[in-house]
Amino acid sequence: MNRDVPLKKYAKKMEHSYTLGAFPTIELLKNQPEHVLKVLLHPDMNSQAQLDIISGLCREHHIPLETAGKTVEKLRDKENIFAIGVFEKYENTLEPEKNHIVLVNPGDMGNMGTIIRTSIGFGIENLAIIEPGADVFNPKVVRASMGSLFQLKFHYYKSFEEYAQTAGERKMYPFMLKGAVPLQELKRAPREVYSLIFGNEATGLPDDFSKIGQSVVIRHTDHIDSLNLALATGIGIYEFTR
Amino acid sequence: MNRDVPLKKYAKKMEHSYTLGAFPTIELLKNQPEHVLKVLLHPDMNSQAQLDIISGLCREHHIPLETAGKTVEKLRDKENIFAIGVFEKYENTLEPEKNHIVLVNPGDMGNMGTIIRTSIGFGIENLAIIEPGADVFNPKVVRASMGSLFQLKFHYYKSFEEYAQTAGERKMYPFMLKGAVPLQELKRAPREVYSLIFGNEATGLPDDFSKIGQSVVIRHTDHIDSLNLALATGIGIYEFTR
Repeated sequence: MNRDVPLKKYAKKMEHSYTLGAFPTIELLKNQPEHVLKVLLHPDMNSQAQLDIISGLCREHHIPLETAGKTVEKLRDKENIFAIGVFEKYENTLEPEKNHIVLVNPGDMGNMGTIIRTSIGFGIENLAIIEPGADVFNPKVVRASMGSLFQLKFHYYKSFEEYAQTAGERKMYPFMLKGAVPLQELKRAPREVYSLIFGNEATGLPDDFSKIGQSVVIRHTDHIDSLNLALATGIGIYEFTR
Repeated sequence: MNRDVPLKKYAKKMEHSYTLGAFPTIELLKNQPEHVLKVLLHPDMNSQAQLDIISGLCREHHIPLETAGKTVEKLRDKENIFAIGVFEKYENTLEPEKNHIVLVNPGDMGNMGTIIRTSIGFGIENLAIIEPGADVFNPKVVRASMGSLFQLKFHYYKSFEEYAQTAGERKMYPFMLKGAVPLQELKRAPREVYSLIFGNEATGLPDDFSKIGQSVVIRHTDHIDSLNLALATGIGIYEFTR
């Protein structure tokens, strides 16, 4: 493990990324310690409680903890960030026997992080991303996820077909404005394994997803065009896991 | 009506605000035409369909439509904005016989706009904001609401007590991490009038809200600390209106 990676501002092509702030850094250290290269601290770090947790976890996992004020100032995007985790990117395999969220071409990093946070919050821990799609390791996604990204199993697929071939037997539920059944009225078999499928923020799912599994619409008034993607996903997850 | 207000970048103390972009400008013109001072266009506006709708609505309501490229460039925050509505701020009275959302000290403008969009989408059209709280007329709130703000009745209150005294007879449901009943198991009386009450992003509702009405918790795993505020509100609204 080469811990001396160049500490430049994050770019998608880099093989490492950052947690900006103590909260996501602690989540990183708790859940993915084997991928942490080092932790950087700013001398102005003022929460002794967070510092104790970070230094304890670094000691336990033999992770270097360095005071590096200038580097923290270079990498952070907000002035109140005093701890940064540096970690190597990793890949997961999805669990074929578990429920999945599938995001087809997600574009917004804040939405993606919020969806991960909600998904972990309701116990769905596998996420398939159909390319092109936002970069889960972008620090903005990590932050919006509140660090719950590090509890997630995720995998990128070139196409929905590639995903479907490897996903294992399951019921597919594409969420579409033209979905056949309102979520509010959906009847489901007990203990079925499912995938909840959501499209891009601006364009939704392509029409041909209506032929896949059981298409679902979240019925709402005609006073709005559509729900926000993170909201629609959150409501779908809530209903399926209630 | 003085239409010649100084066209400076938005600040909370101003008596007018802006819709940045064609989509929220159309929603403004459709729903609050009596408050529109003028509409500004950039010469690069390229959607003839949106231009036709905007100019038709301006003609119908005798609203000046001006080409003002430099002013649009000064007021906008994204380069792809070519239409800006200028409107005077207004106040509403809440409808005491209708269901309400109550936000206690909301801080994030994106969350507030998303909450308004979801609320309008599920037919709850009254919003009480307990001060201090984010400014509904900030263009960021307007944008995140996708213009649905202009279908909303909202009112600011100095305290929750002031709200409760004027809200009419209704059941109060404070949403709290320590809520007494999980949302997933809540039993409600048919046709009751209700208020769904949510706290600040970082701090939630103060503990003493547990004595008000029926406190509710959205049960989730202990793998996350809490849900995002807009997600929690959206899930609450979905469940109460399903």
